[in-house]
Amino acid sequence: MAAIESTGSVACVGLDPRPDLIPPTIVADARKEIHDRVSQVAYAFARFNHGLLDALVGVCPAVKPQVACYEAYGASGWRVLESTVRRAKELGFVVIIDGKRGDIGSTAVHYHQGLLTSAPDFNGFAIPGLGGDWVTASPYLGGDSVLPLVGSPSEEKGAFVLVKTSNPGSGDLQDRPSDDGTVAQQVARLVDRWGADRRGRSGFSDIGAVVGATYPDDARSLRQLMPHTLFLVPGYGAQGASASDALAGRTDDGGGVLVSASRSIISAWKLAGGADGAEYAAAARGALDDMNAALNALRD
Amino acid sequence: MAAIESTGSVACVGLDPRPDLIPPTIVADARKEIHDRVSQVAYAFARFNHGLLDALVGVCPAVKPQVACYEAYGASGWRVLESTVRRAKELGFVVIIDGKRGDIGSTAVHYHQGLLTSAPDFNGFAIPGLGGDWVTASPYLGGDSVLPLVGSPSEEKGAFVLVKTSNPGSGDLQDRPSDDGTVAQQVARLVDRWGADRRGRSGFSDIGAVVGATYPDDARSLRQLMPHTLFLVPGYGAQGASASDALAGRTDDGGGVLVSASRSIISAWKLAGGADGAEYAAAARGALDDMNAALNALRD
Repeated sequence: MAAIESTGSVACVGLDPRPDLIPPTIVADARKEIHDRVSQVAYAFARFNHGLLDALVGVCPAVKPQVACYEAYGASGWRVLESTVRRAKELGFVVIIDGKRGDIGSTAVHYHQGLLTSAPDFNGFAIPGLGGDWVTASPYLGGDSVLPLVGSPSEEKGAFVLVKTSNPGSGDLQDRPSDDGTVAQQVARLVDRWGADRRGRSGFSDIGAVVGATYPDDARSLRQLMPHTLFLVPGYGAQGASASDALAGRTDDGGGVLVSASRSIISAWKLAGGADGAEYAAAARGALDDMNAALNALRD
Repeated sequence: MAAIESTGSVACVGLDPRPDLIPPTIVADARKEIHDRVSQVAYAFARFNHGLLDALVGVCPAVKPQVACYEAYGASGWRVLESTVRRAKELGFVVIIDGKRGDIGSTAVHYHQGLLTSAPDFNGFAIPGLGGDWVTASPYLGGDSVLPLVGSPSEEKGAFVLVKTSNPGSGDLQDRPSDDGTVAQQVARLVDRWGADRRGRSGFSDIGAVVGATYPDDARSLRQLMPHTLFLVPGYGAQGASASDALAGRTDDGGGVLVSASRSIISAWKLAGGADGAEYAAAARGALDDMNAALNALRD
């Protein structure tokens, strides 16, 4: 909430590098400087991300690397994720590790270590993990899977739990009727309950919710069930939702929503002219400025 | 099914290394040979796993590395995961990557690449990923998240989708009433449907189900809804389920179940005497022999 306040933005940029999103100018440099093919990808992803971070600092509160994009390139990809998170933290971004993790408690502890804090060596000393601030989490295994992932409130970490996702197939399970509303509404009640004793100074808890922008009516009804929950809202931009859709789940005070966009920001260079993509960071900044303007016009 | 046939075993061993499970003799070697603390852990995990694999080859069909245990140590941990999967495949094990992944389709493709197949470089050539045979998957985002994770049937990969998990909190969501049975039963129907056109020579599909051994009555009722689904059954051993519990979900033909155990096998050296754990691999083999005997006594 402090980062939203200081940047005047509720936007979160997804750092989801893929070979086809990397500007040709960076690819050409990677080919020139590096022989090994996986290191070429790693170099290009890292340079792309660092350029984006430098261009976006101060104008959005948070970035959200999608772990799958890095895991696709194994240990080399993971090193890029490490360097991306490190740089983002240095620049003052809140970092949301988008991994949608969910496992039994004894396993969730290891995700907590790797994604948010640190793991022990053989002497019990800490080996730093990614050190993200938040993770995305699946609710399917229940509270004893989600709470160990976040850790104790004093660690000041958080999890955005999947409630209603932005994809077309989200209805397969989330929209099914339950004994009191839909499955997504049941999960919303769980999220509210898990976070009840974990509210910070802002009034919001460290157990947030993922509520897709593509289903604004659902977002409004889910807000009623989760009045003290931060919403992470994917689906704006490339997935087709408008600013109004994305803000549908805000609180009566007009807050509690972080709107995520990825492709529409990080691949804005493809629309901006200049086929080599040399101006990709400026193009991303322009797209983010537009996104901020669209969202802030409705927030005022 | 072929691996179950050739080994005469329905056991799957979880390769879930943690510092406190590593025998002191390996830790001592790691400290002696390596200075860097994270490399000490990586060396020890890799040696532990390789020793286990060599001892267990031929007596169980599958191994299941838990991704969280490796991600806790970042890129170094991921390298151990890579070497573990490579060695397991060389020895002929079926490898189940236990990551419980679940994300929108465009993201699931990246997990498919990293965990099961390969990712493209800038020329579209393949950079090999882990190359596992199966992954574990969350159903929460629906069919358009699960099917891209598995890929096309011709790739001969599979996913075990979480249906009813072994942990106490599984009831939070999975046991909630729905319009036709519980949420877990709804997911079982989805799993059956997703796999309907994807059955192999064995009669089972490449969309499997995770059904915990700790809820045998559920396993029996879920089998009725998923007659052509392979069950991956966690919870045997350290989590308290018996052989009879673990086999509760088998088909009328007595098949279709793979029973997973981790701590009770890989840390058997702690009970076997010899405080330095030098005989950890033999102890694991002994524990697996016992597990096979207990399961096979009921299968015959």
